[in-house]
Amino acid sequence: MSKPAIAKGTRDFLPSEVIKRNYIFDTIRSVFKTYGYLPIETPAIELLSTLTGKYGEEGDKLLFKILNNGDYLAKANPEALANKDSNKMLSSISKRGLRYDLTVPLARYVSMHQNDIQFPFKRYAIQPVWRADRPQKGRYQEFYQCDADMVGSESLMYEAELLQILDTVYQKLNIDTVIKLNNRKILQGIAEVSGQSENFMGITVAIDKLDKIGREKVAVELTNIGMDNEAANTILDLIEIKDINEIATKLSSSETGMLGVSEMNEVMDYMSDYTLNNKIEFDFTLARGLSYYTGCIIEVVADASSYPDLRMGSISGGGRYADLTAMFGLKDMSGVGVSFGAERIYDVMEECNLFPDSVMKSLDVFFVSFDPESHKYAYQQVSALRAKGVSADLYPEGAKMKKQMKYANGTGAPFVAVIGSDEVSAGVMAVKEMATGEQNNLTLEELLEKLK
Amino acid sequence: MSKPAIAKGTRDFLPSEVIKRNYIFDTIRSVFKTYGYLPIETPAIELLSTLTGKYGEEGDKLLFKILNNGDYLAKANPEALANKDSNKMLSSISKRGLRYDLTVPLARYVSMHQNDIQFPFKRYAIQPVWRADRPQKGRYQEFYQCDADMVGSESLMYEAELLQILDTVYQKLNIDTVIKLNNRKILQGIAEVSGQSENFMGITVAIDKLDKIGREKVAVELTNIGMDNEAANTILDLIEIKDINEIATKLSSSETGMLGVSEMNEVMDYMSDYTLNNKIEFDFTLARGLSYYTGCIIEVVADASSYPDLRMGSISGGGRYADLTAMFGLKDMSGVGVSFGAERIYDVMEECNLFPDSVMKSLDVFFVSFDPESHKYAYQQVSALRAKGVSADLYPEGAKMKKQMKYANGTGAPFVAVIGSDEVSAGVMAVKEMATGEQNNLTLEELLEKLK
Repeated sequence: MSKPAIAKGTRDFLPSEVIKRNYIFDTIRSVFKTYGYLPIETPAIELLSTLTGKYGEEGDKLLFKILNNGDYLAKANPEALANKDSNKMLSSISKRGLRYDLTVPLARYVSMHQNDIQFPFKRYAIQPVWRADRPQKGRYQEFYQCDADMVGSESLMYEAELLQILDTVYQKLNIDTVIKLNNRKILQGIAEVSGQSENFMGITVAIDKLDKIGREKVAVELTNIGMDNEAANTILDLIEIKDINEIATKLSSSETGMLGVSEMNEVMDYMSDYTLNNKIEFDFTLARGLSYYTGCIIEVVADASSYPDLRMGSISGGGRYADLTAMFGLKDMSGVGVSFGAERIYDVMEECNLFPDSVMKSLDVFFVSFDPESHKYAYQQVSALRAKGVSADLYPEGAKMKKQMKYANGTGAPFVAVIGSDEVSAGVMAVKEMATGEQNNLTLEELLEKLK
Repeated sequence: MSKPAIAKGTRDFLPSEVIKRNYIFDTIRSVFKTYGYLPIETPAIELLSTLTGKYGEEGDKLLFKILNNGDYLAKANPEALANKDSNKMLSSISKRGLRYDLTVPLARYVSMHQNDIQFPFKRYAIQPVWRADRPQKGRYQEFYQCDADMVGSESLMYEAELLQILDTVYQKLNIDTVIKLNNRKILQGIAEVSGQSENFMGITVAIDKLDKIGREKVAVELTNIGMDNEAANTILDLIEIKDINEIATKLSSSETGMLGVSEMNEVMDYMSDYTLNNKIEFDFTLARGLSYYTGCIIEVVADASSYPDLRMGSISGGGRYADLTAMFGLKDMSGVGVSFGAERIYDVMEECNLFPDSVMKSLDVFFVSFDPESHKYAYQQVSALRAKGVSADLYPEGAKMKKQMKYANGTGAPFVAVIGSDEVSAGVMAVKEMATGEQNNLTLEELLEKLK
């Protein structure tokens, strides 16, 4: 006998949790489909040669590595074995790992299947990923990502489309959000007009922390990477501007900065006819750490004015990357994508009570019966209902009515049908509406009508 | 730059493949729901202490093992390290592995969450599993299982219910099948009346091969496990009986055998009112290798009379197990379940052209445009259609019409809308129905009406 246990950082999901999670996934999927994104799937297991070096040194450490099958030590690096050098031995005993995100597999996929797909290629994927992070509240080693990406066009139409996808998904999920928008080229322009072009990467890293550590500490970080106080404050003043026209006047001397402004204006122009359901705002403090972004960057947070007590980071993010597939040899493929943080979206919806009651109803009607004869009769009614697509179930045997009713309650079915010998001889069922307690004798046809 | 490659035995799925696979999964899921089964999910990563020893020695070898993170050699068994003993070293450098099936995780789940769920517990799961089998045609290292199981009742109602689930799913998928039914107790009865009770496990192993190696070779196997020719032939004659009443007369001296017969009759009695869409037959040659089955056993094959050229093994299977959760300390939990072989179902549907055309339509309408102005106009139309839930898309920029039309064709959209300056000024779109070539100028409302 094994003591039942689960691996650290992983989770079992109860039915009620799966049903709510699927509600989120299904909502996102339906919007992706409406916008013409196609589903692809890549395997959980990838070659380590595909994964390693794509997520930085820290990422490499967080990859789950699969031990080669069979006598894996036979081909182990003898020197590493002698020195107990785990790092050095790794490639000789493990050639595969678990997917760390959906973006690198997308790049590999597009490179490998470039002749089977047409560009622009619009794909979505909703799949689990694995990271050997230290588990903590809200952080798991196995979790889902929900990504939509377009690869193969520079058109800013796709930025607009993805903003509308974000807006539509959050409307359907009934979460009020603020969709924040920036452009790497504007940040480059800000660095340029502040005379700090050579510090660009350092600037993005520093201002990425603004939310967390505040303006003063970011100013210190900026001076730490080699600029004086004045330049640091110039940059901080510029990124705190909220108005696109105001930033345009400040960046007029920077060609890159002005290109960023014109890109932002073109994206908004595409959306001029579209009625937003969420707030959308320019936020030049938005940097997003990922170094592969080159144009627009997007981040979504739950709207603090709707949920003042909620403490939650961004629930979606994305942006434009000029050359993602180059790492697998396919060049000049500009792409743009967004990713929904399903785990955090779940937490927001739970904390703020946003799941509609209707989501939780899995069973339409549950049957209980008094004796073997009425049980068989009940089975036939259930069977007839199921044939009509109604979700119906019954207690398996003539247990005590109290036990059966307790189980019926536990199913959450809105209707419970009670069958005894009277009902069998009359060809009806005593149907109780659980919300009101109202009870009626109904025929199968009448019950079907009521359930519609 | 990495050369893009995929791990042996794993697969990428193109959009058309994902769409067809999801059609199968969605069909199965909808029937599971109708029958009151609830979804659960367990993690891909399980402790090796949960998995090891549950699938036999061969199964242990086929488990994917995950290397411990960090300096895994620090805690490696020094003796095993010195002797390069892969087996002995394993537990000291790997404590987790990948899910091998959905049944052992179910048993672990039910044992761990016995206070969070109510019994009878009806769950379904549709998730990938991993086996380090040698890859070959139709056999992959990562593949999906689709299981429905009930745990916690001995009622034969559930056998009937699962047979109806099989029948309904295959009707919805439009695959003609033969659902074969047997009972381990009948096989025990056959062994008993042949005076071979002590050889029962050997008998099930031998007759499991009847389809593949034929009667004569099975007879040889039976004599090899210690019975004479006459006993072997008695057994073979008995299992080839097709009629439940005939087997009943032969087994009248075996209490266990007669219990099996009465179980089969009770299952069929539950279904007496149900109209079958597939063939169902008793098949006493059906043994199914899995040793944990104790009552009814079920296997489904595509109907050879409908698909004479098809060569395919069973596409579903299942049965009753008296004590599955005992391995995790929870005793006396009788269960019964079925599993759909989604990969083989896919192959059957592909080979026999059973996927409906409607499944493949992912986009309702695709837009092409002549110039920047009509492109922006087209974007607004597309945006308006998407807001109505119509799946619509457009080519991103004013490329050559030939290129745009080629792309439009590639999307498989049944309607293509062409926008030029004439259409913009008239406020219409030139909509071509791709199947007929018919073209009409339509307003947005007229197009919406046409798409209904």
